Amino acid sequence: MHLARIRQQTPDGPEPRVIASDNPERGWVDVRSHERLRRERAGATPAAAARIAAAVVPASMSEALANGEAFVDAARAALADASGDTSLDSAPELTNALDPAAYRDFMCFEEHFSFGYRWQERPVPEIMYELPVSYFGNPRAFIGPGDDVPWPHYTRRMDYELELGIVIGRACTNVTPEEALGYVAGLTILNDFSARDIQAREMTGGLGPAKGKHFACGAGPYLVTLDALPWERGLRMQARVNGETWCDATSAEMIWSIAEIVAWTSQGEQLQPGWLLGSGTCNGGSTIEIGRELSPGDVVELEIEGLGTLRNTLGIPREGGWWPKPRRPASHA
Amino acid sequence: MHLARIRQQTPDGPEPRVIASDNPERGWVDVRSHERLRRERAGATPAAAARIAAAVVPASMSEALANGEAFVDAARAALADASGDTSLDSAPELTNALDPAAYRDFMCFEEHFSFGYRWQERPVPEIMYELPVSYFGNPRAFIGPGDDVPWPHYTRRMDYELELGIVIGRACTNVTPEEALGYVAGLTILNDFSARDIQAREMTGGLGPAKGKHFACGAGPYLVTLDALPWERGLRMQARVNGETWCDATSAEMIWSIAEIVAWTSQGEQLQPGWLLGSGTCNGGSTIEIGRELSPGDVVELEIEGLGTLRNTLGIPREGGWWPKPRRPASHA
Repeated sequence: MHLARIRQQTPDGPEPRVIASDNPERGWVDVRSHERLRRERAGATPAAAARIAAAVVPASMSEALANGEAFVDAARAALADASGDTSLDSAPELTNALDPAAYRDFMCFEEHFSFGYRWQERPVPEIMYELPVSYFGNPRAFIGPGDDVPWPHYTRRMDYELELGIVIGRACTNVTPEEALGYVAGLTILNDFSARDIQAREMTGGLGPAKGKHFACGAGPYLVTLDALPWERGLRMQARVNGETWCDATSAEMIWSIAEIVAWTSQGEQLQPGWLLGSGTCNGGSTIEIGRELSPGDVVELEIEGLGTLRNTLGIPREGGWWPKPRRPASHA
Repeated sequence: MHLARIRQQTPDGPEPRVIASDNPERGWVDVRSHERLRRERAGATPAAAARIAAAVVPASMSEALANGEAFVDAARAALADASGDTSLDSAPELTNALDPAAYRDFMCFEEHFSFGYRWQERPVPEIMYELPVSYFGNPRAFIGPGDDVPWPHYTRRMDYELELGIVIGRACTNVTPEEALGYVAGLTILNDFSARDIQAREMTGGLGPAKGKHFACGAGPYLVTLDALPWERGLRMQARVNGETWCDATSAEMIWSIAEIVAWTSQGEQLQPGWLLGSGTCNGGSTIEIGRELSPGDVVELEIEGLGTLRNTLGIPREGGWWPKPRRPASHA
């Protein structure tokens, strides 16, 4: 099953709608519309059917996943119904599929992270081989397919990062890798846009990336359930800039599996439906390691086998903006 | 103004209620109850008044702050009304005041971070004096006054961190320090609980703290607006363990001001109502720098002048739990 969202106009502004598909090339179904009709057929008045459908299939993908079986049943029923009453155009304009309340990014590709540490003039730390290391990203920075990438005033060195995104489907705590996949809703494409100049400076502080990542993160164009993907043998991952291929890699090179990432993250905390975990950049999946550079207006397309293509255009660098004034260390006072 | 929450029993389980006070020693007012009565006096039917009051004063503090002037007016009106109809017992049992959708922690105290880098066997990086560096914490890990601190299986070395918490009141982007305080709802106490053994290992990866922080973060007992605090001259900050004072410091030693922290964080992204920014640990505000150690069952009290006391009891270490199996680097294959 593929899950995505479109934007519906309302008198109070656009509202996202969850849509589902068995095969995006053959078309999509509006899940809430189908649920409303299904409830009417089961004896609800039209107004009551609309209320129930809005609760079972909310505008937020995270809230929809949080509904558990109620939402999954509604989506599967919509796909099973061949009547076509709630079918959309075969190629509707997709918006942000995901609205994760939390987003954490890992580093699972050895060639990429080995390059990254050389770039920081450091040896590869042993911890990278001991457990999956991660940081939290900004959950408000998500942009969807077709969106422009804001270019903040504090950077001149923009980059993309081609990653596999893992979407949590059910709340879980302290699970093992054997149990973990049962809590995964599916996979998506992730573009962890990076401002390399400020990132390199900040990371010398040891608290991880911050402003270097918080301005934008791309996800989508849709979420695909694990049963509909050949994920176990690895998925081909490609990046194109202005139509030219800059990366051609595979998720088979992850040194930590999807199940291990979810299991480790769930230790000592409860993961929530809709939360997004990133694989980290695939090998060769950013510009720094291939000696290329991006410019305003560049079109970045990330494609992962079975997950579609996520296309975004880089914006124009913002002028102005505030910088802190440096402090004098007390030891120099 | 002081804002807090209590837990009200309902047939569907406990629901938080926002309460307000001019002086917690003299008592609190239930803001939604007062708003409901105010709407009735303005001509709404009882049912309609209850609906409006629930929208204007929701259960979530972040959603309440997101309501802007509607909520602030309701809270101030409740405090101004001396009729006493909606007054609570003078010392109601407070729960989690805050439910931030995002939480970011800084390092603004030089003595503390200088110790921290020595503890990591590193020199203090220059970036610490160039701009405020931060990381995102786990927004699902918040516990409130009186709550037990979960002790995850993966640590034996638990610590507290005494911090000043800054609560965002209005959405803001690219603001200057001169503008920043207008977007701050108020201050609170923050206890950024830390698992030092796993934290020290993880941070060698350079992505910042992760499991070392994600299991618990204390906040509260309430939020106090800036106009009700002598914050400009600095606030006294104390930590007590089982009644013994282990730290006595002041927020006057922050090398980045509240306004600078908010302004820098707002560059290139939009801060949201209810988001929490931590000052970082005050000087002497954790056990590692004073050579002490915590045990299960210890009672940790953090007190900040004007912000009350946040008291939590350490839980019992969880047994079992999953650990990843180390990988072999490709270079060693």
